[in-house]
Amino acid sequence: MREVEYLIIGVGTAGLGAYSRIRRKSKSLLLIQHGPFGTTCARVGCMPSKMLVTAGELAYSIDHGNYFGVDGDYKVDGKEVFARLKRDRAEKFVGGVLKAVDKIPQEIIIRGEARFVAENRIEVNGEEILAEKIILACGSSPFIPTPLSHLAAELDTSDTIFELDDLPHSIAVIGLGVIALELGQAFHRLGVRTTLFGHSGRIGPFTLPEMQSDCLKVLSKELDIVPAGKFTAARKKGSQFSLEFTTGNGETLVREFERVVVASGRRSNVLNMEIAKSGLKLDDRGVPVYNLQTMQCGNAPIYLTGDANEDLPLWHEAYAEGRIAGDNALLFPESKPVKRLVPLGIYFSDPQIAMVGKNIQSLIRIK
Amino acid sequence: MREVEYLIIGVGTAGLGAYSRIRRKSKSLLLIQHGPFGTTCARVGCMPSKMLVTAGELAYSIDHGNYFGVDGDYKVDGKEVFARLKRDRAEKFVGGVLKAVDKIPQEIIIRGEARFVAENRIEVNGEEILAEKIILACGSSPFIPTPLSHLAAELDTSDTIFELDDLPHSIAVIGLGVIALELGQAFHRLGVRTTLFGHSGRIGPFTLPEMQSDCLKVLSKELDIVPAGKFTAARKKGSQFSLEFTTGNGETLVREFERVVVASGRRSNVLNMEIAKSGLKLDDRGVPVYNLQTMQCGNAPIYLTGDANEDLPLWHEAYAEGRIAGDNALLFPESKPVKRLVPLGIYFSDPQIAMVGKNIQSLIRIK
Repeated sequence: MREVEYLIIGVGTAGLGAYSRIRRKSKSLLLIQHGPFGTTCARVGCMPSKMLVTAGELAYSIDHGNYFGVDGDYKVDGKEVFARLKRDRAEKFVGGVLKAVDKIPQEIIIRGEARFVAENRIEVNGEEILAEKIILACGSSPFIPTPLSHLAAELDTSDTIFELDDLPHSIAVIGLGVIALELGQAFHRLGVRTTLFGHSGRIGPFTLPEMQSDCLKVLSKELDIVPAGKFTAARKKGSQFSLEFTTGNGETLVREFERVVVASGRRSNVLNMEIAKSGLKLDDRGVPVYNLQTMQCGNAPIYLTGDANEDLPLWHEAYAEGRIAGDNALLFPESKPVKRLVPLGIYFSDPQIAMVGKNIQSLIRIK
Repeated sequence: MREVEYLIIGVGTAGLGAYSRIRRKSKSLLLIQHGPFGTTCARVGCMPSKMLVTAGELAYSIDHGNYFGVDGDYKVDGKEVFARLKRDRAEKFVGGVLKAVDKIPQEIIIRGEARFVAENRIEVNGEEILAEKIILACGSSPFIPTPLSHLAAELDTSDTIFELDDLPHSIAVIGLGVIALELGQAFHRLGVRTTLFGHSGRIGPFTLPEMQSDCLKVLSKELDIVPAGKFTAARKKGSQFSLEFTTGNGETLVREFERVVVASGRRSNVLNMEIAKSGLKLDDRGVPVYNLQTMQCGNAPIYLTGDANEDLPLWHEAYAEGRIAGDNALLFPESKPVKRLVPLGIYFSDPQIAMVGKNIQSLIRIK
């Protein structure tokens, strides 16, 4: 059985943050990566989403240009929209990450899916590794809600939607969070018939009801949004999806779409790694309970960082968390609590939505 | 002779700032306004400039849209560009100022041009006013450099350029500061043949030579900029201006333009008001020496604010200065020095240029 001092599971933003702190100071260090390199943010998250937003904004600006005295006309070349997205993503965003990964000695990276065997034992590709300290930086995966899960193989998520080669004629966007709003508005502006389906009526990052309702009002002026209700039937008929949705008012909508993209949140990948065998205390989501200021799970030599902790799925937070975890893994069994960044998130919808500081729900909890 | 406790000369941004502090606390107060209400920023400065920039950006985006997969074509309707500029300016920007002015009791506003008769005596429309405390918030006017001054009546400045009814075919922009760069780039992007002429080679807000040279390099990729030299001849022939410019390299350029807009700085309007009779100490520009933190001129009950002091010709600074001056006029002969805002200026060129904090020249002076 291989034994190492440090084991980092996941070579994304958080894992690279931890690696930057540990690499010079460890006696032995291994990294495990499942799936493609390049980070969620750069490959299938915020960055490609903004690239689609840019094209959509351009079309929208031309549509409204006569107000400014610039009378324009345009044709959207869907093939080129996606070709450019993939080209810029590869060269500018993913490319940068791959350069960072290339600098890591390749013999310390294991490609495979890790799972816990015991608190300090990980199995990967049939091999067991005994690790003194483990950093869980394994990220998250798109979550497909139950009413649609039987169609999972046919639906799009952010993992697949940026791989399209052309624009669809119509698309249903499931979710009203950041990626859903950005994608939905971009597709709509690029001429795709688009409907956004929510669940609870909650839209955007807001937790204050008045802000939610204003946000819905403003975005609904342009977009077809069904904010609350549930899918009562969903099936694929030939090349079309047929969705039946019962709204909060009890009304039933039946609509057909060429594509359905699910952007209704992500779930920690620790849920796929037999985390119960780690012996860590789990919260009601099944995710280890950890300290926000040290990233440590209880008193164990295990640290939970980045999207894997389901806290703030943002590039800058993931990198900060990776570094905090790396520093504290070096200090184990000591721990140095680090004051966290002021929460900051931006939705590149139009109008843009930014949240800075704690939201109203957190403030109520603190009070 | 009329006698008042407070006299505010200029009802622009700085004057309104001072008025907001004094109005409830004065025994008697008069305001003098020369020229149209509406503030330099809203009427002939940053705001209309940004409106032209927006139209130019739109044309530029469409030109480059095929990169993003949005193949567009457009026609610039110059008449509509200016119609919309004037409409939005009147309704959104100047309109707001006029509402604020309308709230001032009209009997305390005198329309006319003020000049000093003595330190505490002002003449306006043939009438003399004795004032205990005077706030100079009289703004600035475009400056036309000597080699072009004989053509002054035919040239454009920011006072006239936004009053055009259509785009010219060609334009010379004199200056490389904020309004020059914004206007020059906007006209160019709207299809007008445009040349920008500098004087000293200095471009943008930079005082660090490396930044200046990078800025010139970047903007010259798109724009025709002649950064240094002087006009050796300038005349109007029929509907065209003929300009002869000898560059820093000794090369002589002769070019014809339909319009010439001078945007090479502004001069304080105190220079037009027989300021020497105020008895205030003047600097080598002829502008009263004043305290940056109290706005007071020496120990006199006179305060110099906004563009009139030729310091930071920015809306937010002018308003802050007006308020500081108002507060200190109320305290006279006491003075309360106020910590000034961190300097902040943005050029809405593309790429945008922002300066925050002191520039290198100020830092060298402090050192």
